[in-house]
Amino acid sequence: MLEELKENVCQANLLLPKYDLVTFTWGNVSGIDREKGLVVIKPSGVEYDTMTAEDMVVLDLKTGERVEGRYKPSSDTPTHLALYRAFPDLGGVVHTHSRWATSFAQAGVGIAAMGTTHGDYFYGEIPCTRKMTEEEIHGEYELETGNVIIETFQGKDPMAIPGVLVHSHGVFSWGTDPENAVHNAVVMEEVAFMNYHALMLNPGHGPMQQVLLDKHYLRKHGKNAYYGQG
Amino acid sequence: MLEELKENVCQANLLLPKYDLVTFTWGNVSGIDREKGLVVIKPSGVEYDTMTAEDMVVLDLKTGERVEGRYKPSSDTPTHLALYRAFPDLGGVVHTHSRWATSFAQAGVGIAAMGTTHGDYFYGEIPCTRKMTEEEIHGEYELETGNVIIETFQGKDPMAIPGVLVHSHGVFSWGTDPENAVHNAVVMEEVAFMNYHALMLNPGHGPMQQVLLDKHYLRKHGKNAYYGQG
Amino acid sequence: MLEELKENVCQANLLLPKYDLVTFTWGNVSGIDREKGLVVIKPSGVEYDTMTAEDMVVLDLKTGERVEGRYKPSSDTPTHLALYRAFPDLGGVVHTHSRWATSFAQAGVGIAAMGTTHGDYFYGEIPCTRKMTEEEIHGEYELETGNVIIETFQGKDPMAIPGVLVHSHGVFSWGTDPENAVHNAVVMEEVAFMNYHALMLNPGHGPMQQVLLDKHYLRKHGKNAYYGQG
Amino acid sequence: MLEELKENVCQANLLLPKYDLVTFTWGNVSGIDREKGLVVIKPSGVEYDTMTAEDMVVLDLKTGERVEGRYKPSSDTPTHLALYRAFPDLGGVVHTHSRWATSFAQAGVGIAAMGTTHGDYFYGEIPCTRKMTEEEIHGEYELETGNVIIETFQGKDPMAIPGVLVHSHGVFSWGTDPENAVHNAVVMEEVAFMNYHALMLNPGHGPMQQVLLDKHYLRKHGKNAYYGQG
Repeated sequence: MLEELKENVCQANLLLPKYDLVTFTWGNVSGIDREKGLVVIKPSGVEYDTMTAEDMVVLDLKTGERVEGRYKPSSDTPTHLALYRAFPDLGGVVHTHSRWATSFAQAGVGIAAMGTTHGDYFYGEIPCTRKMTEEEIHGEYELETGNVIIETFQGKDPMAIPGVLVHSHGVFSWGTDPENAVHNAVVMEEVAFMNYHALMLNPGHGPMQQVLLDKHYLRKHGKNAYYGQG
Repeated sequence: MLEELKENVCQANLLLPKYDLVTFTWGNVSGIDREKGLVVIKPSGVEYDTMTAEDMVVLDLKTGERVEGRYKPSSDTPTHLALYRAFPDLGGVVHTHSRWATSFAQAGVGIAAMGTTHGDYFYGEIPCTRKMTEEEIHGEYELETGNVIIETFQGKDPMAIPGVLVHSHGVFSWGTDPENAVHNAVVMEEVAFMNYHALMLNPGHGPMQQVLLDKHYLRKHGKNAYYGQG
Repeated sequence: MLEELKENVCQANLLLPKYDLVTFTWGNVSGIDREKGLVVIKPSGVEYDTMTAEDMVVLDLKTGERVEGRYKPSSDTPTHLALYRAFPDLGGVVHTHSRWATSFAQAGVGIAAMGTTHGDYFYGEIPCTRKMTEEEIHGEYELETGNVIIETFQGKDPMAIPGVLVHSHGVFSWGTDPENAVHNAVVMEEVAFMNYHALMLNPGHGPMQQVLLDKHYLRKHGKNAYYGQG
Repeated sequence: MLEELKENVCQANLLLPKYDLVTFTWGNVSGIDREKGLVVIKPSGVEYDTMTAEDMVVLDLKTGERVEGRYKPSSDTPTHLALYRAFPDLGGVVHTHSRWATSFAQAGVGIAAMGTTHGDYFYGEIPCTRKMTEEEIHGEYELETGNVIIETFQGKDPMAIPGVLVHSHGVFSWGTDPENAVHNAVVMEEVAFMNYHALMLNPGHGPMQQVLLDKHYLRKHGKNAYYGQG
């Protein structure tokens, strides 16, 4: 069942240690088959060294119930499912505690668009969610984590800003497929690094010019894109 | 004698360079057999490259005397022994000068619980000891180092905060066994990195919400834990 | 056609990941044959892992038209061409978003000559361009990027300061040939690292003494050089 | 001639890239045969990748003249020779532009003894020289670099503080032999890293207690040392 997607999700999970985005098992990637309404995700607490496509867990998008797989799914699964339900264009979702971006999450500070590296992938600031309430934390916590992300994106296009910082927690990113979601997680880590040092060098410095952000984002995305071999 | 424990302690010592927690021979791991009252520890000043289980030193927990082994034990041995005597649940102890956490120790600043990465492993601030007195330093220094750690944990559960910063010195961490103690040393280095940058980004920012700390610590520890395959 | 130059340009592109100057495909190197008036450059959006000399694109220096190659050239090609036209001694050009130097570009801050590492390669501050105007960004953007660099070097010798920060964007460097241009890109990243930390340690500290800069630059460059085996 | 020393000096030079202390050829190690009055040093501008013991250059300590070797010696040779002449216990000398320590040199700030990692190797602050005068820079510059280091150590024991920052320049360290000199260069880089971050975390924080520095330095050095297997 879903052999190709399980393989893609497994490979995308293995990119997390390759790009130094995770320590131990602190990260997970999922992918979705929209037609079948099924989500494939990394099992909980399993080591990357020995993980295979067969270890992936298949879940029903609507009910969240396990359809296939011998392991329990990642404990962050309800967050992934909430994002897939709310954002219909998502093909893959990633969660990490990558060092530079998570430093911003712990500070409760969004990553402003300060340069074209950012603008090539994210069309504006990567926001940080508000703190979760006691009710949300005591309730269905992982589902509510998804809900606070969705709230943060009210009035924003999640495909144009494919990532978020969860306050005091870590990073979620997404994309057109699992690999693309990891790609965006790598970009977040890079722009967090550069944003941090630029802020230290020039604390009053704001975001880049809007016209430059428009230029860079739109030369790579949308109908007038001209970057790459496409 | 204690072949399995010697192998485990040796392997846990080799994790220190693997996780980039040590330079040269600046670190050591020990383990304990509580039934026999024997501690196994790395020899002093021996290179990781050539270390084998046979090089480990076996000591009597009560007297500190060498029971087996051709080498002198790590000069930090009296600190390890003091911790095993005071904290009966410890199965392994680690000492390192890992860069990020030791920077906090040198600054005399504890690592506040600023995010869920921290809360998944440490149930509150990782404290920094007070400075040692002249009498302690001139006395049985390595034993007194253990004593000042024990003093720092008065009223705290050492298994819920499995690590400490020794003022102007470095890091001790511990766990249920030698490998788990190293695991906690890796986590300390990660959270020190993120705590540092979060503090620079937002200097007035305090620790995370207590309710979020409770949630993360308790979903992985204790009788209501639901993380992983357990 | 230009087999040796294509090989050199390809090899110089492969130095970018070797020296950790690029993530994904965020960088490109070109070289020039001045006699033939032809420029060789990396194709757009192609992976470093599989790139060969045959993938390089050959362009006419004057017209910018593709003379050979199955791929589209890097989207930054008009910037490279503008620099070759304006600076007749350039043999190679590099563009990267390398982390430390780009942090300065995002902050809009030049890299002052604070030490002899800098002075061995760059005879003065590595400048940051002004922000581009809306007209420039909406016009022939990549060509105008070259023009704003050229404007920044009015009254400066581009061979004595072989690199620049483009405001809110990234790094261009150059040299006598493609490999030398990469060499200068590596130096920029190193001096950006050290300049950053020196500024944090001693914020009021200005550049090094002019006489020391003269000494270091001139012992390696020009007719009185005495460094190396030459 | 001096085959063993040439091999040791060559191997010590190869430790510089191994410990990530150098970029390109920015570093050099020498060693001395005190009985014969001969110094062995790395040639100028030669790549580490292909260097062999046979490439080392042999010089007369007193005259500085080349006694053996097909290459020109490192351009920093007069600094090495000045240190060997002034400090009779030196067996090896290293020069690097290692990133963290050189950041302090560029800031003109010494590395205070803030922790026991420092105290295990350096018995007090690692000083930064004064700026060199115009006369010194225009004169025999590399020899004067040695002289300003010697001046900095007036009243200090160079074997107890085996390294120095040269203002706006880089690092010199030394030791009982070439390998030991590199060892001290690695320690300088580590303590510079930790000192930097401790200063950022707690700007008003001074050096560690003198009594703790005494304890750590003297448990590893001198007649009452008890660290290691000795």
